[in-house]
Amino acid sequence: MDNMTMQMMEMHSKDMAITGMDMGMMQECIEACAAGEQAATMCADSMMDDSMMMCRSMCANAADVMNTMMRMMMRPAGMQGETMMGMLSATMMMATACADECMRHAEMSEECRMCAEVCRQCAMSCQKMMDSMSMA
Amino acid sequence: MDNMTMQMMEMHSKDMAITGMDMGMMQECIEACAAGEQAATMCADSMMDDSMMMCRSMCANAADVMNTMMRMMMRPAGMQGETMMGMLSATMMMATACADECMRHAEMSEECRMCAEVCRQCAMSCQKMMDSMSMA
Amino acid sequence: MDNMTMQMMEMHSKDMAITGMDMGMMQECIEACAAGEQAATMCADSMMDDSMMMCRSMCANAADVMNTMMRMMMRPAGMQGETMMGMLSATMMMATACADECMRHAEMSEECRMCAEVCRQCAMSCQKMMDSMSMA
Amino acid sequence: MDNMTMQMMEMHSKDMAITGMDMGMMQECIEACAAGEQAATMCADSMMDDSMMMCRSMCANAADVMNTMMRMMMRPAGMQGETMMGMLSATMMMATACADECMRHAEMSEECRMCAEVCRQCAMSCQKMMDSMSMA
Repeated sequence: MDNMTMQMMEMHSKDMAITGMDMGMMQECIEACAAGEQAATMCADSMMDDSMMMCRSMCANAADVMNTMMRMMMRPAGMQGETMMGMLSATMMMATACADECMRHAEMSEECRMCAEVCRQCAMSCQKMMDSMSMA
Repeated sequence: MDNMTMQMMEMHSKDMAITGMDMGMMQECIEACAAGEQAATMCADSMMDDSMMMCRSMCANAADVMNTMMRMMMRPAGMQGETMMGMLSATMMMATACADECMRHAEMSEECRMCAEVCRQCAMSCQKMMDSMSMA
Repeated sequence: MDNMTMQMMEMHSKDMAITGMDMGMMQECIEACAAGEQAATMCADSMMDDSMMMCRSMCANAADVMNTMMRMMMRPAGMQGETMMGMLSATMMMATACADECMRHAEMSEECRMCAEVCRQCAMSCQKMMDSMSMA
Repeated sequence: MDNMTMQMMEMHSKDMAITGMDMGMMQECIEACAAGEQAATMCADSMMDDSMMMCRSMCANAADVMNTMMRMMMRPAGMQGETMMGMLSATMMMATACADECMRHAEMSEECRMCAEVCRQCAMSCQKMMDSMSMA
């Protein structure tokens, strides 16, 4: 996330409908989702044969889920604990499943290996946010 | 969902990576998500003043979540029990929260009343799919 | 588009920032874009081998473009002649290119044949809207 | 765009269906679209009153258009000159219109001022790509 986006996020957080969100952690998670959407979109586009049909389909799903998660974090005005937790959990599952499937092709495809790594990062970032929210 | 989409869905379901999905129920849920995305997109665009800031933000979130859910159901090749359940649950929560918030403005805004109804329908449809999947 | 969405669209059109839009034509175009997004999403998911790599990638693009076009028509508050024309033209090109590519596989894949038909419909609907807007 | 995404993009560009694309320029444009989607999503969420209704609606449109443009650049397998030009042109118009509208509120809202700047950057980046493509 570039610098200006970060500044806007801090500014806009004053409208946040819930309290106790760790802004630094959220910015990290926004970045992880954005990187994940990009990696999974490219990875889905690069799959070549039959054996990768499931992987490609999961990457397409992961890209959409991570984009939606990112957007939800960028809309503080309607942010709610329960819906955030639900979507963080869904994103964490989707990113993990996508990473696992991509790893099965990591030796054939460098793109899959890299996508797996980025998705794994995103899953961890979502998990960290969930942990901090349930503590708050 | 028009007729041709339904035919494509039936045809494509042969590639489905999991078994035990009720196709009729899934088509209904696809339709409910599509209608929900449209209603929430329009509703978010129609909010006028301060008091509706949270409602608008939640409608924007709901539209993105329901679109992502719809797309996941249209990609049978990578369909997985766990990720489907996670996303159905997130959609159900988001649609319910959006419907609840919209209902608070139902007397001021006919658009909110209608959006609430469409979101409620979508939440029920997701719940029905989750129930049938956990039985399978 | 189901009935309620149509009613909301009529209601919300009072906020429309430009004049001279044919509401019936726009509802038809919204429906065509929604059907196109669904068909192209499924079609992209069903491609199996190497020879369909380009087709799958174009279907994924077409699905995103048609969804964005649909959403723009559902946001009357910010509707503008120039940006509408630009996006209608981009959607028309994308849907036509996708239909052309899908038709090349129509004999191998019934899904491609159907997707081509739905995309062609969408392209025509965008063209009709552009014609009526340039007359207004 | 983080480093890994850039590496994936370079790797995946071997599948590119057209020639003559300037990869450095494209990476810059991908980054500009990603930053634009984020800024416009936050800006749309922060608008408070009536007088900003049009601005908010245009920001929501701009976010969707810029996301779709970004994804098209990340799918080299189906990349085509005509559809790329059409969508670059639509994005350029949408980002410019959004920046113009945001600038009208720049004194009231720092978020609008920043969003305008990011959108202007995106429009310029699309224009540069169009120029280089029409030279090729």
